[in-house]
Formats: sequence, structure tokens, C-alpha cells
Amino acid sequence: MIRPNLPVDPARLWNDLTETARIGGTPGGGIRRLTLSDEDRQVRDWFRATCEALDCVVSVDSVGNMFARRAGRNEALPPIAIGSHLDTQPTGGRFDGVLGVLAGIEVLRTLKAAGYVTHAPVEVVNWTNEEGARFAPAMLASGVFAGVFTQAYADERTDRNGIAFGQALEAIGYRGPARPGDHRLSAMFELHIEQGPILEAEGATIGIVTGVQATRWYEITVTGQDAHTGATPMHLRKDALLGAARLVDAVNGLATEGKHPGSNASVGLLEVSPNSRNTVPGSVFLCVDLRHPDDTRLDALEADFRAVLGKVLEPLGLTWEESCIWSSPAVRFDAGLIDCVRRGAERHGFGTREVVSGAGHDAAYVARVAPTTMIFVPCAGGVSHNEAESATLADCGAGAQVLLEAVIDFDQRTFGA
Amino acid sequence: MIRPNLPVDPARLWNDLTETARIGGTPGGGIRRLTLSDEDRQVRDWFRATCEALDCVVSVDSVGNMFARRAGRNEALPPIAIGSHLDTQPTGGRFDGVLGVLAGIEVLRTLKAAGYVTHAPVEVVNWTNEEGARFAPAMLASGVFAGVFTQAYADERTDRNGIAFGQALEAIGYRGPARPGDHRLSAMFELHIEQGPILEAEGATIGIVTGVQATRWYEITVTGQDAHTGATPMHLRKDALLGAARLVDAVNGLATEGKHPGSNASVGLLEVSPNSRNTVPGSVFLCVDLRHPDDTRLDALEADFRAVLGKVLEPLGLTWEESCIWSSPAVRFDAGLIDCVRRGAERHGFGTREVVSGAGHDAAYVARVAPTTMIFVPCAGGVSHNEAESATLADCGAGAQVLLEAVIDFDQRTFGA
Repeated sequence: MIRPNLPVDPARLWNDLTETARIGGTPGGGIRRLTLSDEDRQVRDWFRATCEALDCVVSVDSVGNMFARRAGRNEALPPIAIGSHLDTQPTGGRFDGVLGVLAGIEVLRTLKAAGYVTHAPVEVVNWTNEEGARFAPAMLASGVFAGVFTQAYADERTDRNGIAFGQALEAIGYRGPARPGDHRLSAMFELHIEQGPILEAEGATIGIVTGVQATRWYEITVTGQDAHTGATPMHLRKDALLGAARLVDAVNGLATEGKHPGSNASVGLLEVSPNSRNTVPGSVFLCVDLRHPDDTRLDALEADFRAVLGKVLEPLGLTWEESCIWSSPAVRFDAGLIDCVRRGAERHGFGTREVVSGAGHDAAYVARVAPTTMIFVPCAGGVSHNEAESATLADCGAGAQVLLEAVIDFDQRTFGA
Repeated sequence: MIRPNLPVDPARLWNDLTETARIGGTPGGGIRRLTLSDEDRQVRDWFRATCEALDCVVSVDSVGNMFARRAGRNEALPPIAIGSHLDTQPTGGRFDGVLGVLAGIEVLRTLKAAGYVTHAPVEVVNWTNEEGARFAPAMLASGVFAGVFTQAYADERTDRNGIAFGQALEAIGYRGPARPGDHRLSAMFELHIEQGPILEAEGATIGIVTGVQATRWYEITVTGQDAHTGATPMHLRKDALLGAARLVDAVNGLATEGKHPGSNASVGLLEVSPNSRNTVPGSVFLCVDLRHPDDTRLDALEADFRAVLGKVLEPLGLTWEESCIWSSPAVRFDAGLIDCVRRGAERHGFGTREVVSGAGHDAAYVARVAPTTMIFVPCAGGVSHNEAESATLADCGAGAQVLLEAVIDFDQRTFGA
């Protein structure tokens, strides 16, 4: 096979990153573009217009996933997808998700400029609600696409203000007609910043992602009794915040005290009620996030977490409700696609390192219904979910180049003569 | 002196408690009537109309304090005040504050029904923003009245949505023309539920309140770094919530581990940022409430609290800002007024118990500018700042009766022939 020489333009990609960062841009230099907010609508409009100008047909499915399709030589073939997400954390960075979609657009531009037509169509995908920051769980719409969740389940998710996903989707005009389950893909590649410190620490440019660690989310409501901070003797209190605080510390301890090496255990969300300076809190809601690359070892971590609840809360006279609201098993990516990525990086002499993704990604769900893999590029200090999130123009360009190489490699090997 | 026989009507008082509890009534049987909210406006309108129907003249000062004045024989004498507050905690009960104002109205009704005219005028006062739940600090407007705070300071206090006290006061139409400092009182009596468990435990009906413990409030912002919960190894995190959680536990320990007996140390308010399930929190805001009956021993508690900040936060790589936003020194009430309360309780054979108030009250500030004391009645289980707050009709009636006796006793002894 002849491998075409199709160099992406890193500066052009960087320009798109800069331009779209203004939509929901924060004073701190990050992006606040919550799923199905008006900012999300604006960036979706930009995505549609930009892709249509590159001769793509943009379709939207019933959970708001957007597919910008560039025709292939054989339109009967399922498309090769390049996908990630344009939504962000509440104070998110400028690369998480966005890079994967805009690098897809850069691939489209490069193909168009060269007049190169793949055998299969190529689709750039914007998956809805990857972050899960507004509507839990994360990766909701790629989950519906992959049959993990039903349409009804997605529609009924509510944000902390009681607004339902389906309602918000219709409010911004991005409920499309297509059934997510009907959309077949030949493959999907997702480029993403690592969101961890390994590539930077080892001086590697390209992370060859072999899989995604398992993740489970739990919601806990701790109940005590509201009481006056001044008039209630310490020994008569049922302080839900004291219990929740000890839980936060104990959850952290699960991952740091040596019994569960390689695990992550976190509390990112915690809300106090009634949250008044002079009232001992009667209720606290919190969310626990447990992760491990191995499902069985995550089972053991979960068992210890559940034991901690009673050990911490019972002595304080507190009651609680706990439920696992999301469980994403460990994922192994497609070996053939991983090889496409490796060859692409080698062709350009980029340093590589195999990694297991610590974060969940749309690719983890899409892997259930199509051959899938991911490409990581370094981010400064491993910092992500943060306005200070940063990646270099060169590394973003390298990622986009490997993405292009892998797509063409896969297309040639799978559908070529 | 002839002591008149003027029995209050507990059922009539109870009826007022029930009627006004509908204004901001919660499904859980409590009241949510935040300072200067529309619910506060409604109950203020009710207070005005009710007192005017009892032949009172209602005036409002520039921080919204309301004075319902019943004429005395000698209108040149400064009035004897009966005051408390009609605002509540976010999920407050039906007695905290409200009882003291409505018992004042019951005193007015009893005096009117008997045609009894005191030497000095009698005023029932509704103090603005006692709770401090919406605008910190607590007891804001009685503080301006007593010269503790300036008008400008009060006006500039903001709620968590950035709305200023002065702005909210004008929005509900309760900025009056009178200067708080110009309003002289001969005395003030405040009836209140105990908000603690002592009276109930000892079977006493009337708490003879000798003073109020010292209180200080601190605001702390803990700063770490937002990071991805899945991709950020535990040892590379700067988790502001972990630090805040350990602070909550350590603050509790200050009051429970034996070094500071008789103190209260609490965290009632805590807010996490960005508060997203899969982001290690980069920032937490919390408020610490420290109390002790003795100012010097509160100094020692404060010093240990400040030492705890560094001990807890530095090892986690976190930084912090701390400021004491409010300090209310210990208060001793007026001996003459305390005797009036004691004699009133004895006349009716109510069991009594001397107590120091654990909670702050408007009386603590008013005591700086007029002879002042308080009367407590029991509340079930000592529960307060809670929708389940409960007091009996008989105890509320006993409190109102002692209030009436004390007012007349003081009026006769001070201004009688």
C-alpha cells in the first residue's frame, strides 16, 4: 500500500482551539461550557457550520450526538469515526474533549486540501454530555449509542436544579431524529489529552492507550439532625457534616494507605444542608468516585468503601443512604486499531508510551459496538478539569497527525484493494 | 405597690404562632423565612397590621427594625421594649425568635383587654436579621441599634448571591426614616426558647438568663488545585476538600477532646468548588463558629483553632485565607431586670433555673445601650434551627405571663409613684 504524505497544519488546529475557547471562556483562561447550556448550543452551531463548509453532511441523533460525515469512495461502508466531546467541566480547561473534535476537523481539512478520498466515509463526532458534570452519569450519550443506557434513562437524568436532560436537549434545539443504536461505525479513534502526568514525566509525545480503568460512582446522603451551634452541647449533636468530613478522609485513605495500590478514590461533590453558619448540619449529600484498572480489584475497593460507611457514621449517631449510580467496567481497546496508532507515531518518529486511561472517555462505551482506541498527548503537569489545563501546539499537532495516519492506515488495510 | 392580676391567654398566643407559621411554612412543618425575603415582608405586614389594630403606632428605622408602640401615662419616658425577631433559619422552626415577638403582642392584647396603662410606653420590637443565615453576621440590625455596627456596614453585607442588605431592605419596602441610634429604651425583655436541653432535662419552666456566651465567626477559604479524579495519582493531588474535611474534624475536636471544656466549635457552612463528581476540588469555603461563656477562654480556643489550620492544611500542600468576620463578647444581663423576671416566675409558681445563653440574641447587643435581660422556655430535646423545633402551649404561655409580669414590675418600680 502507498501511504500518502498528508501533513496536518498544527497552527490551523491551534487557531480552532483558540476560536472555540471563547465560547464559554472564563476569566481564568478556561472554559465553562456545561452540557446543553447555551454555550454548548453555540459551539454546536460552530461545529455544524465549520463541518458543512468542509463538504460534510451533519446529522444529529436523538440524544444530541452530532456526526459530520465526509463521503468515502464506497458510501455503503460504515464510516470511520473520529470523536470526542465539546462540553466541559464547570471550570474546565481548553483541551479536555475539545482537542479530539477539533483534531477531527483538522483531519477533514487536510483530506480536503489534498483531495484525498478514503474508501469508507469519515465522520467527526461530537458526543453529548461526556463530562457528566451537569447530568450524571458521564459519557451519557455515547452510552446510549452503545446500548449501555436507554433513551428514556438519558432523558430522565436531571441536573441539580431539577432540569431533565431531554428537556434541556430540546430547549437548545439539538434533539435529532436518528436512533442512536442504528448508527454503525467501522471504527472509532479518539484523541485526548492524557489528563495525567505520565507522558510528560517520561518525555513521550504519543500515549498508545490500551484500555480504560473501571470506574464506579456512588451517591451518599448522610442524615443527622439540624441543631443550634451555640446552644447544643457537643455530646448531644448528630452532625452530618462531621460524619461526611470523616468519610471524605476515609475514602481518600482507601487509596493512599497501601491496601489498594493503583486505585483512585475521590469525593468531588459535597453539598451541606441547611448550610447555615450557626446550624449544625442535619444533612450532607456527597458523591464518591472509585477507580481501578482491574474490575476484581475495584470490587475489593468497593467492599472496603461500604464497610467504611458504617464504621465512620454509626458512632456519630448518623444514618445514611448509599447507591451506586454508575459502573463502567474496565475496557481493553482493539488490538488492530492500537497497531494503526503505533505505526502512525513511528512513521513520524514520535516517542510513544503505552498507557491505561485513568479517566473515562466516550471511547470506553463505543468500544462495545465498534473497534475503538484512543491516542493521548501530554498536558502540563497532568493538570486537567482545571482552567490551567495546558498542552503545546506541537503535541496537539502530533496527536492530530497520528490520528490522520491511523485513520488512513485503518481505511487502507480494511477496505483497500 | 399593687400588682395587677393580668392573665395572658396562651391559646390566643398559640393561634398567632400557628397563623404566622404559614408565612414561609415548609412541608416539614418548619418555617423558611429568610431575612428581607418576600416571606419576611409578608410577616412584617402582618406584624404592622396586627399591632395597629391594638392601638399601637408602628415605626421603622433605617435598618428595618420595627417598633410597635403602645402609649404610656407618661409619653416622655423611654419605652419598655419587648423584642425578638421574625426571620428564621433556611429550614428553621416555628418558635425561634417568633415566640418573643408574638408573646409581646399577647402582652399588648392583655394590657388592652384589661385597660391597663403602664407609666412608660411599651414597645414590641421586631429586630431585622437576627439569624444571620442570609446576611452574616447575625444580630445585624440590633447591632446597628446598639452602635456595634454602622449603618453603612449593615447596608454592604451581601448574601451568597451578591445581593446587599441595603438593597434587599429597600426592595421589600422596609427601609424606615428613623436613625437606630436615636431610639432610647428604658429596658428590654426578650422571651425565647432555650434552644438547648437544660430546662427540659431539669424540669424547669422558666430559664432566668444571666448572660450570653461569647461567639466568634471565621471564614476560611482553602485552596488546592482542580484535577481529574481518574487520571491524577493520589500523591500528586492538592485536594482542598480533603483539607477542609480534616479541618471540620479538627474543629470539632477542639471542643470535644477535653482541652476546652464548656466550649462549642462548629462548621455549619461549607461550599465546594467546582463541586463536580469527577474533579478533585480546588477550593472550599467554610465558616467556623467558636463559643465559650468566658472571653479569655475563647481567646485560648481561637489560638488553638488557628494553629490547627496550618497543622492540617500544610501537609496537604494547600494554602488558605482566614478571617474573623464577627466577634460578640460575653454579656452579663441587668441584675434589676433579672430580679423582675425571677419575681414574675415565683408569683406563678413556675420552676426556674438560671442559665447562660449558648446562642446569641438581639438582647446581647441591646444590653450595651439599655438594661436588658431574657426569659427562656424549654424546647423539646433542646432541638432548634430545625423544622422539628417544638415547645408546648403551656410553656409558651408561661413565658408570656412572666414577660408581662416583668414588664409591669419594672414599670412600677422604676416609674411608679
